[in-house]
Parts: sequence; structure tokens; C-alpha cells
Amino acid sequence: MTLAQALFSPRAVALIGASGDAGKNSARPLRFLRKHGYAGRIVPINASRGEVQGERAWRSLAEAPGEIDHAFVMTPGDSVERAIEECGARGVPVATIFSDGFADAGEEGAARQARLVARAQALGVRLLGPNSMGVVDVPGRVALTVNAVLEMDGLTAGTTSFVSQSGTMLGTVLSRGAARGLGFSKLVSVGNESDLGVAELVGLLAEDPATKVILLFLETVRDAGALGIAARKAHAARKPVVAYKLGRSQLGAALARSHTGALAGEDAALDAYFRDCGIVRVDQLETLIEIAPLLAGRTPPNLARAARVAVVTTTGGGAASVVDRLGMSGIETFAPSSKSPIIDLTMKATAEQYTAALDDLLASPGCDGVLAVVGSSAQFHPQLAVEPILSSKKNAKPLAVFLTPHAERSLALLAASEVAAFRAPESCADALAAYFAWRAPRELAAAPLEWPRELPRRGRLDEAQAFALFVSLGIEVARHEIAAAPGYAHAVEYPVAAKALSQDILHKTEAGAVRLGIADRAAFDREVRALLERVPAARAVLVQEMEAGLAEAIVGYRDDPLVGPIVLVGAGGTLAEIYADFALRLAPVDEDEAAAMIEEVKGLAIVRGYRNLPRGDLRALAKAVAAVSRLALVPGRPVAEAEINPLIVKSAGVVAVDALAVMKE
Amino acid sequence: MTLAQALFSPRAVALIGASGDAGKNSARPLRFLRKHGYAGRIVPINASRGEVQGERAWRSLAEAPGEIDHAFVMTPGDSVERAIEECGARGVPVATIFSDGFADAGEEGAARQARLVARAQALGVRLLGPNSMGVVDVPGRVALTVNAVLEMDGLTAGTTSFVSQSGTMLGTVLSRGAARGLGFSKLVSVGNESDLGVAELVGLLAEDPATKVILLFLETVRDAGALGIAARKAHAARKPVVAYKLGRSQLGAALARSHTGALAGEDAALDAYFRDCGIVRVDQLETLIEIAPLLAGRTPPNLARAARVAVVTTTGGGAASVVDRLGMSGIETFAPSSKSPIIDLTMKATAEQYTAALDDLLASPGCDGVLAVVGSSAQFHPQLAVEPILSSKKNAKPLAVFLTPHAERSLALLAASEVAAFRAPESCADALAAYFAWRAPRELAAAPLEWPRELPRRGRLDEAQAFALFVSLGIEVARHEIAAAPGYAHAVEYPVAAKALSQDILHKTEAGAVRLGIADRAAFDREVRALLERVPAARAVLVQEMEAGLAEAIVGYRDDPLVGPIVLVGAGGTLAEIYADFALRLAPVDEDEAAAMIEEVKGLAIVRGYRNLPRGDLRALAKAVAAVSRLALVPGRPVAEAEINPLIVKSAGVVAVDALAVMKE
Repeated sequence: MTLAQALFSPRAVALIGASGDAGKNSARPLRFLRKHGYAGRIVPINASRGEVQGERAWRSLAEAPGEIDHAFVMTPGDSVERAIEECGARGVPVATIFSDGFADAGEEGAARQARLVARAQALGVRLLGPNSMGVVDVPGRVALTVNAVLEMDGLTAGTTSFVSQSGTMLGTVLSRGAARGLGFSKLVSVGNESDLGVAELVGLLAEDPATKVILLFLETVRDAGALGIAARKAHAARKPVVAYKLGRSQLGAALARSHTGALAGEDAALDAYFRDCGIVRVDQLETLIEIAPLLAGRTPPNLARAARVAVVTTTGGGAASVVDRLGMSGIETFAPSSKSPIIDLTMKATAEQYTAALDDLLASPGCDGVLAVVGSSAQFHPQLAVEPILSSKKNAKPLAVFLTPHAERSLALLAASEVAAFRAPESCADALAAYFAWRAPRELAAAPLEWPRELPRRGRLDEAQAFALFVSLGIEVARHEIAAAPGYAHAVEYPVAAKALSQDILHKTEAGAVRLGIADRAAFDREVRALLERVPAARAVLVQEMEAGLAEAIVGYRDDPLVGPIVLVGAGGTLAEIYADFALRLAPVDEDEAAAMIEEVKGLAIVRGYRNLPRGDLRALAKAVAAVSRLALVPGRPVAEAEINPLIVKSAGVVAVDALAVMKE
Repeated sequence: MTLAQALFSPRAVALIGASGDAGKNSARPLRFLRKHGYAGRIVPINASRGEVQGERAWRSLAEAPGEIDHAFVMTPGDSVERAIEECGARGVPVATIFSDGFADAGEEGAARQARLVARAQALGVRLLGPNSMGVVDVPGRVALTVNAVLEMDGLTAGTTSFVSQSGTMLGTVLSRGAARGLGFSKLVSVGNESDLGVAELVGLLAEDPATKVILLFLETVRDAGALGIAARKAHAARKPVVAYKLGRSQLGAALARSHTGALAGEDAALDAYFRDCGIVRVDQLETLIEIAPLLAGRTPPNLARAARVAVVTTTGGGAASVVDRLGMSGIETFAPSSKSPIIDLTMKATAEQYTAALDDLLASPGCDGVLAVVGSSAQFHPQLAVEPILSSKKNAKPLAVFLTPHAERSLALLAASEVAAFRAPESCADALAAYFAWRAPRELAAAPLEWPRELPRRGRLDEAQAFALFVSLGIEVARHEIAAAPGYAHAVEYPVAAKALSQDILHKTEAGAVRLGIADRAAFDREVRALLERVPAARAVLVQEMEAGLAEAIVGYRDDPLVGPIVLVGAGGTLAEIYADFALRLAPVDEDEAAAMIEEVKGLAIVRGYRNLPRGDLRALAKAVAAVSRLALVPGRPVAEAEINPLIVKSAGVVAVDALAVMKE
């Protein structure tokens, strides 16, 4: 018996703490298993009664007969460990723990969870949860869950599986899908992920022949490395992975801080992570539910230009509500023989005309996908309304359908034919945008990079050391010298900049530790005195040549605690922060990937030929971004974060004028 | 018989072109009127048959008996004029024209429409359409429409009315509302708005005792002035007006151009317009349908700080999906006795606990609104799930409910009690954000402003004239002189800037018509020669003192063809354009409103105390914005657009260094 079999297709389940009181949550699994036709053996365990909901129950797992593949534990938190002991004793390979009061309940709970996991590991029992709402295998008729939505009749079987960090969402996705005819294969609520986590489950589903698309509802990512590997496995198996992740608006808070790490922000880092792992990220909850048919069997389009969607409709207003959104995602429309960006057949169109228009577009090399919109008739003449779509060569290209009225039967007819249909214009546009943004997982370079022998491997580097680090990566830095007491002599040509050299200052400008445009030696002496007054701890003064160019960029590296090494390029100065104007990727990146990042930075438009301004050396900028990203290849990854801000972009070359590097220890 | 009565409550309707073929669109109005219990008299008119769908029909309106209040015209475009003639002859006060082929069909159609309107006016017949899908009065049982959605049984009566520029959306809103128990009063498809338009209909609905909330689906605004007046009338009658407007993504295209007009962009201008007219703007289509109970009976909150919402839930994940969105709109959460930003009662909560938690918050002065989230139980135990909400003091504060599963019955129970309930987390958050952004209509100053006698009232002003215009408004401008051939003498102190003085150059910098930082007379002479080579048409050279400050802003004015005079303040240089970083209002604004606009500009953070940088004189900036906005008060509004870019913000005062003004003629 494999882990997947025990988890999803157990031949016998024990319900530890099964209640006879129908009103209780702990009565549900027994009722749901029976209701949905579970074919295996059910073993209710109840410490105080021999009968539960009319079925024979046992006082403890020890007393129960036969082999048990999966235990579902619902007893209070402090009795869970005993239940797991019993599982171990009976050789139960998997236990799903609904009980809460573990990592979800403060430090004490976290300690209790750690003990539980250690014990389960010793006993050879795999754990789902604690705080898991359970597992559902729709085609297998296993409804091992406390989620109230399972009160529904006749679950619809499908080929989409779902892993959720929210137990409620298991029911939400199942019930919302059912309402529009979308079926599911396996659904899992992972709870606290004390043992079995999202990554391992994605890996299992990637191997599952009954699963074609994998959906994720995420509140966090607990093991980014493992999920990245699992996502690549799913990609290799041609199974799209789609994520809806909470925490988008924390970006604002993260941006309140100024160094790279904060800039990158949790959500922006996760966005880069999903992209680089080949995971499709959706913005709206309904999109998560509706997108599967758009992706099933498809591979990432990897578009290097704006996507083009052709639109066929019988209602101008209905189509426009989707197209308006598509425009907001930078998607273009394609309408070969129409003056309008859409093909509006009006409500007079015949079914034949609609199908013909669709087929033309589905066959056209001019567009990357097709949107079909149906108006009011979809509600009361569903067959009539969707027939032209079902009759088309609907699989020739990604096809999305938006129905303007409330039209559940039309949605179900489309779902039954595996056509992606959307209830709201926003989720329809979101799905198309997510599809077009989908990239194959990026393979990260692995050749190790030597750490410069002369630089320390711990602490904060001072700026001269940070410059040396960037020079070792092949990046040009402003000409500079260290001027030390007593004379502060240097040979840099005036005008110069002077900075107090100290590891202790993070924001030099705000600390008054930088003086720019010093014209001559007399001015320099004055400024040095002023500097040392402001920063008495300074060990010396860094003197550097003034540099000017066409634009300023920020280039940063951070070993993100969640997703690992990331590289950033953004508009320089304060722009990256004020406007969140930066692009992120998992590090390292090659020059082509870096060039694609640079294209995403709006503020660098001024060196891309904007208003006939002179062009900057973006190839040199890309080289610098790629170079900084290679910090991820230093064995042991000693760098916590490193940043050049600004990196001056010239018409030939780039030059770093301000550098920062912080080691992990 | 008033216009409203003839339009919405006709005692008799003529159906001109009523078809006997049930499959045809023109057969629908008769069927729908009967189906939904129209109590008045129906007069089918069919040129070729005396019977239609089993009812007596007449060959022409002339032959039909009795008084007719409303004619619905479905005959082909070229016969519509005859139908209107007949309406005039019979004294029919209102005709709704479904027929298309008018302004919707090119120039020829537009001319035909103009003829039709002129004739109808002469005959005293008011027109709805052409290209209108008709009118529905749900409580009055008038279903005078061709929209297929009216095949539905049992329309739900309510107090929300709807005016739509898309005929399809009439059915969309009606049917989507019905699915969640939301009723409607009147629904109107305005078609081409040849006569009766959105503005006049809003005015009628503002007077309609059966209407509490007015919804608009807009593709454009055809008469902004009239709609502004109607919206104010609705506000005075305490009837919220809500708009969903297409065309959001055209902003991107508009931004491709550089002067104020283009910057303002159509959508941004409309956004300002809606706000200043007291119209609530929603982002998502479903929000338009669901928001009415949140607004009914309420007045604009006019919040001057971030809104605070308290959240009660039984599901963390479900609540987070809404809260995450709220955060993206800058809304804060309020949770008095919880460490978390939300109050998660978990699925163990009793109904009493839920109601008590809700009541606490509904009574708390700490929050401006409450969000209640219900998990999976909402689907199969609707009464149980929503009872705690219905038992609460639900009207004490704006209350929004999000149900995580597919739960139409719960939605309907909430709708029946006039509680705002939302199907998707995104529309729920959108509705709350729209509510909190709602402002009372702003009254615009009207005192006229004299045009400076020395300045022309037509053509493009040259920069010296534009400077004079801004000086006349009380704005400080950089010291400048005109230096003319042959000697180009001037008395401005070096360093100076020199610009070719010509009305013909819009983008001086790109045209090479500006030289900055000229150090002395010798350099000046060289630069003047270079300038005149680049711009041979220059009539002279404008010499101005170099100015420096803490930040640059752009201040602009435009008489927008759609919404009228608008004023803009944004981050200076290229930032306003690259990052769409600007705030807009209808002009004029007073200094307080200008100050609120300045707060919205992200890039001006650098003079608001960001990172301890010195603060700029934002009061002086506000004065300048208000001053520029007063161009709207010049009689005849001769200015098409005017712009200062940049206006230098100093620690004391602001100074214009670059000015542009274009007259309408």
C-alpha cells in the first residue's frame, strides 16, 4: 500500500472520536462517507459508546478488528498523541488529524506538535494536519472530511485536484465548482502541514493518473524548495499547477522599509517564485475554480510579446466588460476583418454564423487564444446558446467563454465538454491573463562561485568591501579610494563624493554620511570634518569620483527566508520604493532573463528610447543583474542581502556608485 | 400623464412590428408582457396579419383603437420614421425604438437618427433608443423588452433601479440579481440615447418613490453636465447612484501622449467626475448587482482617513480572501480584543457567540463598517448560517456579508432582509472600498474670473504669454526675459536657461529647444546660435533664471470634451506619465480639495517627510493647483489646456519654470 493509496483510497478507515450526535462536527465523516458511497470498511472509535449513528463502534483502536489504512482523528488536542500511539501499534500508515490546538495555538501548541511529529515519525505514521479538515477523493467515493459542504448530493467527479491550506476552502471550491458543473478528483486540506505538506501532495498528485490539473489555495509557502521540485515534476507530467495565494496586500507594508529585502516584499518574492517554478498564479478566487479546463493538457505558452486574444460575441457590452480587463493586463485583441477590436455578431446572429466565426479564429495564426461571449439567451436556451461553441473546433486553441446572465446550465454544459467557462468578466480576464503569463519552470544555474578570499564571510561589509565584492562579480564601480586620518589624502580627481566608511549605517544619506559634488581640496577638508562630526564611528572616508549617466537603477540580491535567493532590478533612487517599480526573479538569472526583467521596469523607459531620449546600455545593465544574481551560487550562500543603488546607466556601460552587502552571520 | 408614467407605467402599449413567429426577437415583448402579468392594454401592430400569437393585431397604428401611452418599435430601420409619424398623429407621448441602423451604424445612420429626433421633437414624441432593448418595471409588471432573460418566471420586485447603455446588461443584472434574491424596480436600456438619455432617466428615478438606489452600466457619458445635475438631485433625495463604467484600460493608451489632456486620460477624468458628482464607482460587474443593500438609505461617509472595517468570521481563509483585497484598497481592519486583525470564532462558534461578536462591533465607534464571513455551513443550513447575522443589530453600521461556499439560499435570505451579501471575496471588498470612497457631490465655485486683457483668447500662447497667464492667476514663475535679435541682450543673472520662443513647439525638450545651466554670456551666445539653428521659426529667446527646489510637480488644466474642466496635480518631470501618478478633480477646486489631491500623489512623498527629507511647501502647491483650476471660471472657458511642468516645490513657496497654454480656437 503506497502513501497515496492510504491517503486517498484507504480500504478501511478508523474514525477516532466519531460522535453519535448528528449536530457535532465529529459526526460528519461517518455520515459523509456513507452518503457518498464509500466502499471500504468504516471503523468508528468512541471511548464511551459501542454504537454510533446506528453503526457498531469500538472503544479504542486497539480493540477494532482488521487492517486499517487511514485514521481520522477528531479527539481533543491532548488525546491526539495517544491516538497516534495506537495508530503506530496497529500499523496504520496515515493519520489525518482534525483536532486543533497545535501549531495553530501558540508556542505551547507548537511544542506539542513537534513532539507529536517526532513520535509519529518514530512509529512510521504519516500525518496530515493537525487542524486538517480531511481528504476527499470524488471518483473513489472517499469523503473523509468534516467540511459541511459534503452534505451536498452527488459529487461531480472530474480530473482537477485541489490542495488547500484553508479547510473551509476545500468545501468552497467543491461547492462552487459543483454549481457550474466542474468536477474534482482529489481534495486535501493540509492544516498545519506538520508532516505531509503542500509540496509532497503536489508530488503525489503529479503521479496520480486521475489528476490533470492541480489547484492550490495558499496562505504561505512552508517549503519553497520542495514545492519547486514538485511543481517541476508536475510540469514534466504535463499537469498545470495553479495557485491562489493570500497576502498580496502585505506588499504595501513591506515596502515601508527600504533595503532590497523589504522592497522585494513577501508577495513580490512569491510572485517571482511561482513564475520561475512554472506555477500559474491567479488573482481572483473564482478563477482558481474555473481555470482548470483552460489549462488541462496545455503547456506554458512562454510568450515573449503581448498576447493577442480574438473575441466573438453577440453582445457588445458583455464582451467589453472582459476586454476592458484584458487591456489592463496588457493583452491585445485581434479582429482580422473588423474595424472594432471585437467581432460583434449582434443578437441576430445564427448558430452557424457564430460557429463559423469561432472556427476562423481558432484556426488563425493571428491570435493566441479566443474569447467567446454569449448574452441573455444563455439562461433559458442553454443548449441553443452554447451549441455554436460546442460545435466549434474548440480545442484548437485556448478558448474561454463568458456568459453574461446567470446561466448555471450553460456553464454546466460547457464544463461537461471541458470548455473553460466563467461566471464573471473579471475571473474570465484573470484566467486568460494568468494563462498567457504562464512560463515553463526556469532551470537555475548551479555552477558554484568562489567567494573573494579577501572579504569576510560574516557581518556587514563596509562600502569599500561591498565595492570589492561587486568588482569580483565583474561589475564596474565608481573610482574610489579610502582616505584615512590624519590627513585624509587621496588621489581621486575633483569633483568627488565623500562618504563616512562604517558598517553601522544602513541609510547613509538619511544619516548625513554622504557629501556629493565636492569641488576642491578645501571643500573636501570641510566636508570631511562635517562627516566625522555626524558619524564619529567612521573608520575612514570613502572618496569617489562623481558619476553621471542617463538613468539610475537599483540592483539587489536577497536570500529570502521564504523562497530563497532572489534578484531584483528596479528604477533607481527612491522610485523602486515609492512606485513598487521593480522586477524580481529567483536567483541566479542569465543575461536574457535579466533583460526580460529590465523590460518590466517602467522607470527605465527613459533609457529605452522614450521621447527620443538617448538609449542606455541595457545589455550592460542585464550583465550586472545576472552578475549580482550569481551570489546565489556561492557555496553556503553566505550573503543575506546585497544592493547597488544607484547603478548608473550610461550610453556605454553601467557603474555602481553606492554599494551595500550584509552577510547572514 | 407624465413622462415617467408613459415610460414605465403605460396604460396601453403598441407593439409596432410584433411578430407571430415565436422564435423571433420581435415576438418577445408581447409574450413577456403577458407572462409577467401586464395589466394594461396591448396593441400589436403587424403590417401583414390581423392576428399575432393568438391576439388581435392591427395593420397600422392609425387603425388601432384607444389611447396609447407608449409605442415599442421593432420594424426595420427605414420604416421607423413612419412609425414615429404615426405616433405623433395618434398623440403617443413615448416611443421606445428597438430597431438598429442609426447612430450605431456609421455616418449615414447617424444622419438618419438626427432626422428622426428632429421629427419626433416636432411631433412631441419622446424617444428611447434607437437600439434600445426596452423598459421593465418589475413591481408594475411591465416587461416591455426584447431581452431573452425575461423568459424567467416570477421577477423579484425591489427598490433598486437600473439604467444601462448595454441592452444585454439589462438582462444580465436582472437575472444575476434574481439568482441571489435581489429584486429590482425599474430597468431601462437607453440604446443610442438619441433623446432620453442616462441623465434624464436618473433625474426621473430620483423622483420615483419606488426607487431607493440607482445603478448605471456605462460605456460612455454623453452629457456630463446633465448627469451631474441629476446625480445631485438623487443625492438630495438620498438615493445613492452607482456606476460601472467600461473603458478603464484606455488609460494606458491615453498615457502614451504627454500633455495634460492625454495624461488625464478618459478614464481618470471620468473617475474624478464620478467622485465629484457623488456617484459611487464600482470596479467589478458583480459589485454593481450586489452593492445596493450596502448603500440603500445611507449617505456618503466622506471619510478623510483610512476606513476601518471589523471582521467576524468562522473561517480564517474565507475572511482573509476579503481582507487581503481590502488592504489593497488601503482599508484597515479593527479588532478590539484580538491579536489578529480579524475575529475568527472558528467553526465551533455558536450562533449566540456570532451575534454577540457582531453586535459589539456594530456598536463600536472604532470601526466604520463590519464584514461578516460565513463558511461551508451556509450552503446546506442557510437559515442556521445566516440567522446570527439577521439577529444582529444589522442596520447600525454598513454591514457586508461574504459566504464562502455556493450558497444561493443564504444569499436570498440575506437579500430578503436587505443585508448586503456577496458571492465573491473580490466583489465584497470592491463594494466596501467603493462605499468608503464615496463622497457627497462637490459644489463647484462659480464666480467668474477675468481673462488678462493683454493675452490673446485664441491660438497657442507662447511660453512668455503662458507665464503671464499663470502670473495673473497669482502663481510665482521663474524670473525671465525675452531676448531678441540681433543682440539677444538680457539682464537675467547667470546661470540661466534659454528656450526658443515659439507657439509651434509642444515638446520643447525633445525638439532641442531648451538649454539649461548656461554659465556666462559667451556660453549663452553659443547656445542661442544652436537654438536658432534647431528652431529657425523662433521669434526670440526666453531667458530665465535657473531654479532648484525639493521636488518637481506637474499642475495642469484641461477642458475635457467628456466631463468638462478638470485640474491635475502629479509628480513632475516624466513621473506623472510613466507611473500615472497624478490626482484629478473637476475644476475649480479650493485649496483644501487641492491639498487632498496632493496627498494622493505618491511621488510627492519626498516632500511629505519621507525618510527625513526636508518638507516642501505643500500649502503653496495647493494654492497653485487651486489657482490653475480657476481657469474654469473664465467666461466662455477659452482655455483648452494649460500646464506647468515642472512647478518647483521649495521649502517656502513654489515656482513655475515651464509653462504651456492652448486656447480652444
